[in-house]
Amino acid sequence: MDIGMIGLGKMGMGMAQRLQRDGHRVVGFARSAGTRARAQEQGIEPADSIEVLVHVLQPPRALWMMVPAGDVVDQTLAILSPLLSRGDTIIDGGNSNYKDTLRRGKSLSETEIDYIDCGTSGGVWGLDQGYSLMIGGDEKATNRLRPLFATLAPAPDKGWGRVGPMGAGHFTKMIHNGIEYGLMQAYGEGFALMRHKKAFALDLHQIAQIWRDGSVVRSWLLDLTATALAKDPQLAGIAPYVADSGEGRWTVNEAIDLDVAAPVITLALLQRLRSRDPDSFSDKLLAAMRQQFGGHDIRHE
Amino acid sequence: MDIGMIGLGKMGMGMAQRLQRDGHRVVGFARSAGTRARAQEQGIEPADSIEVLVHVLQPPRALWMMVPAGDVVDQTLAILSPLLSRGDTIIDGGNSNYKDTLRRGKSLSETEIDYIDCGTSGGVWGLDQGYSLMIGGDEKATNRLRPLFATLAPAPDKGWGRVGPMGAGHFTKMIHNGIEYGLMQAYGEGFALMRHKKAFALDLHQIAQIWRDGSVVRSWLLDLTATALAKDPQLAGIAPYVADSGEGRWTVNEAIDLDVAAPVITLALLQRLRSRDPDSFSDKLLAAMRQQFGGHDIRHE
Amino acid sequence: MDIGMIGLGKMGMGMAQRLQRDGHRVVGFARSAGTRARAQEQGIEPADSIEVLVHVLQPPRALWMMVPAGDVVDQTLAILSPLLSRGDTIIDGGNSNYKDTLRRGKSLSETEIDYIDCGTSGGVWGLDQGYSLMIGGDEKATNRLRPLFATLAPAPDKGWGRVGPMGAGHFTKMIHNGIEYGLMQAYGEGFALMRHKKAFALDLHQIAQIWRDGSVVRSWLLDLTATALAKDPQLAGIAPYVADSGEGRWTVNEAIDLDVAAPVITLALLQRLRSRDPDSFSDKLLAAMRQQFGGHDIRHE
Amino acid sequence: MDIGMIGLGKMGMGMAQRLQRDGHRVVGFARSAGTRARAQEQGIEPADSIEVLVHVLQPPRALWMMVPAGDVVDQTLAILSPLLSRGDTIIDGGNSNYKDTLRRGKSLSETEIDYIDCGTSGGVWGLDQGYSLMIGGDEKATNRLRPLFATLAPAPDKGWGRVGPMGAGHFTKMIHNGIEYGLMQAYGEGFALMRHKKAFALDLHQIAQIWRDGSVVRSWLLDLTATALAKDPQLAGIAPYVADSGEGRWTVNEAIDLDVAAPVITLALLQRLRSRDPDSFSDKLLAAMRQQFGGHDIRHE
Repeated sequence: MDIGMIGLGKMGMGMAQRLQRDGHRVVGFARSAGTRARAQEQGIEPADSIEVLVHVLQPPRALWMMVPAGDVVDQTLAILSPLLSRGDTIIDGGNSNYKDTLRRGKSLSETEIDYIDCGTSGGVWGLDQGYSLMIGGDEKATNRLRPLFATLAPAPDKGWGRVGPMGAGHFTKMIHNGIEYGLMQAYGEGFALMRHKKAFALDLHQIAQIWRDGSVVRSWLLDLTATALAKDPQLAGIAPYVADSGEGRWTVNEAIDLDVAAPVITLALLQRLRSRDPDSFSDKLLAAMRQQFGGHDIRHE
Repeated sequence: MDIGMIGLGKMGMGMAQRLQRDGHRVVGFARSAGTRARAQEQGIEPADSIEVLVHVLQPPRALWMMVPAGDVVDQTLAILSPLLSRGDTIIDGGNSNYKDTLRRGKSLSETEIDYIDCGTSGGVWGLDQGYSLMIGGDEKATNRLRPLFATLAPAPDKGWGRVGPMGAGHFTKMIHNGIEYGLMQAYGEGFALMRHKKAFALDLHQIAQIWRDGSVVRSWLLDLTATALAKDPQLAGIAPYVADSGEGRWTVNEAIDLDVAAPVITLALLQRLRSRDPDSFSDKLLAAMRQQFGGHDIRHE
Repeated sequence: MDIGMIGLGKMGMGMAQRLQRDGHRVVGFARSAGTRARAQEQGIEPADSIEVLVHVLQPPRALWMMVPAGDVVDQTLAILSPLLSRGDTIIDGGNSNYKDTLRRGKSLSETEIDYIDCGTSGGVWGLDQGYSLMIGGDEKATNRLRPLFATLAPAPDKGWGRVGPMGAGHFTKMIHNGIEYGLMQAYGEGFALMRHKKAFALDLHQIAQIWRDGSVVRSWLLDLTATALAKDPQLAGIAPYVADSGEGRWTVNEAIDLDVAAPVITLALLQRLRSRDPDSFSDKLLAAMRQQFGGHDIRHE
Repeated sequence: MDIGMIGLGKMGMGMAQRLQRDGHRVVGFARSAGTRARAQEQGIEPADSIEVLVHVLQPPRALWMMVPAGDVVDQTLAILSPLLSRGDTIIDGGNSNYKDTLRRGKSLSETEIDYIDCGTSGGVWGLDQGYSLMIGGDEKATNRLRPLFATLAPAPDKGWGRVGPMGAGHFTKMIHNGIEYGLMQAYGEGFALMRHKKAFALDLHQIAQIWRDGSVVRSWLLDLTATALAKDPQLAGIAPYVADSGEGRWTVNEAIDLDVAAPVITLALLQRLRSRDPDSFSDKLLAAMRQQFGGHDIRHE
């Protein structure tokens, strides 16, 4: 079927290509002319503006937003929604906060444009392996888009599903990412322990490879770990600085709102914050306190 | 090749069967006559005692211990090692603490019996899917046993390897299990959060299934989670009581010894301890303190 | 000086009494006639309504709100602010979220009524020992109220101060309570460990008493702990259920917003959440997973 | 009464002085001649060797060891115990692991020399303010030493006590220090949060001072915090590097052995470990994983 893709970044471009390869007609908009040119080389019809994008598609249209979460989504909706009409569907496939999704969906509900939230996992590997899609919103609208989901997912009947009403897709993706933080941190800690056990001189890449087959800890993140360690088991040149894109902190806040203790997901987030604060004031104060009560030496910077 | 298997519990029996199916001659010892009878039905030659087991095997022998970690290993070695001679090999395939392994290996080193530690992962699924094997000890001895490892592993060249000198196998398995604790806890917390989000009425089994294909959090533990949730997404009747078999606590102790912070693995262990302490004295004292300073009501038992 | 106290709960009543005892004229409003009668017995002039309260005070008036944080503050302000005029001062002495304080103060700024936020610590002991006051807002208005602060504090020049502009008082109080969570949890855990060390049959009350003099861990919370343990070192009948009044979770959210890892304060909050979730779904799922991969027994409820 | 003090470091010297000032005869041994000379200036009789120390005291002797925990205690006992006889008492006032104390006490039990373990808190302030003493061991022996404890403690009947049999003193001190870790970390985190809230430009020293009177978080550690912040509220020049002297890690290990979750004490220790590992391999691996799955940029060192 026809689909308009708004946003052709790492994720959006990959999804557009996967759809195009499977026979869908994909019209794509990106602000950068260079990006649009690259899209065209992949068989994606470029559109110079959102207006053009809407214009070249026949109603009922499907418009898939794959733009950075936050203001850009609101700005895109402000342009897009006046151009659409009853029966058209907007899909937010990005990492929006599900509370924003609820607000946006409510605001769109008067227009009779369908608004679907689709949590999308898979990263840069999704183009080839398919994406995992967690969909929230109207059931009929979801069914209309079935051909798209079937193409984007790893298999037509696998890796995607409507998980609930509006917001449920982004909520589920948020939890997915919270879990991801915990998983990553668990591997990170385990490999760090092995690296520090000098006496055994362990080959971390070899161990990651061994674990990939038959072990209880085998996973896709372990596969990626093995790939990263294959390049350089010392990870030389990589700074111990871990960014976060927001979903982890939303998960922690949500857990607290729900009165559910999620200590491992929470600590995984806090370790990322800590990785970006090398000059911890808390640690300085502890050193100062120890000097106060015990006369212990402090290290000077 | 010929192999003597000491211990035919869930793990030992599965390994013995996998070896036998692949054409190895497996002689098995278990204390229980019933267990030995079941082993015999699977094509395993039963031995009534460790003495008999050793007697029916030709030197150089390979003796695989698959017994509970701790005293039973020492007791087994006390019986076994005087019966063996130079060139024979003992493999400890259980979850022994690597420090015990170092002690035992050192004690055996005078006998010229080879002592191999093999961390074994895969659980009850290993029989069919193969086991992940992390091997420590002498390189020549490891090479002699290659046919066994190739059979036990998921594929002859996958899922097993010699990771270092004596103790390195059990050390690596310990870390493996520490990571496992963290992974499990991350999934547990994430699914608990989804369950508590009543507004979305999420189907946890469906979500686990969706995530199995294409998502960043796909893993074997997620596969098992999906299976568990398929039986009953409410997990009704299962007590919130999580046992531990020791390797998690060794990992935490090791992390502290190595001066490496492993907060997620550590917290994952502590949550298990907490699950077994429903009458937390700490929580009682906090309730009592709050009453003291704020006049806050306490709940009575 | 004259002061109108709105809210005569545990905190408000104690503060009104402390002010009255020191010679201030205190007019008090509470919704309950019984509460007003009790206040009158303590020398506090009762007012049947906020209107009456404002009416009996001479401008420039000082109105101290000591009501539950949240909607009640907004409702009180909706009644109170139209009755006041330039030069009057409203003090919010409760545990308001500093973000609400900023919003309210901004909304009041057009009225030229001064709005002061005063974080108040000391609990039910403040009446006799004095309260610790963390004040935010206009400097002149704070100075005008100096006689009140000097009375409420443990000493005229101790235990109180203007810490910054509007919101800074409640912010500081929020952090104070976050620290309090961490301190309480540290004591709770330590005493729980001693209780579980059966071999030494430690007398927890005696140890709390010993620590009160000369030790590094001496504190007011330890004093209260000793009092609680004096009544019953077993804390029999007290449920392991720890409530929270919101400031801990705000602190955790703030820490995440500030990109500062505060793991101990965070974990202290999570333990409280955990204390109220005896039927942890996460723990159930872990038990189910262990059964899946290892064939481990689960406990049935 | 007469007392021999072995070890005249920061703690031992302070204790010797406090005893001497109160009229006890104190003979002191330190390996360094300079230290012995300084002790002599304080009225402490210097002894050139442990042999001399024992010789100049009349039986029944009291010998107080105030030496670094670990091997030095064993070495000191190896010299000391053959010189003593029935009725003499050795006190270990240092931070020995209670398990070592049990071992040493057992080994001494055949000699009929009494062995007392005395956990000592108070740091460099103890000389003036008195020490908190947690005593384990024989009740009669403890009673014989009562004059010493009464002098060392902040008051004759306060801040000290026999808490249980041999080992109980050091056990209690270990828990004390575990709690101390948690308390310190709670303050550290809270002050760090205030420092990062730039909008309020909070004066951390002022806030520490305010909290010292009347607040729920008042404590001796807060007093020290105020002192440290008075010198420099920026803590400039102090490295964010927090040492630990072992008791925290013993507490964490003990908690795990006791199956008691102590997350706040545990995390407080882990933060210290983290403060000393600026080049976290775990963080590097997470950055590498994010690059693998999301194509996220990594920072280069």
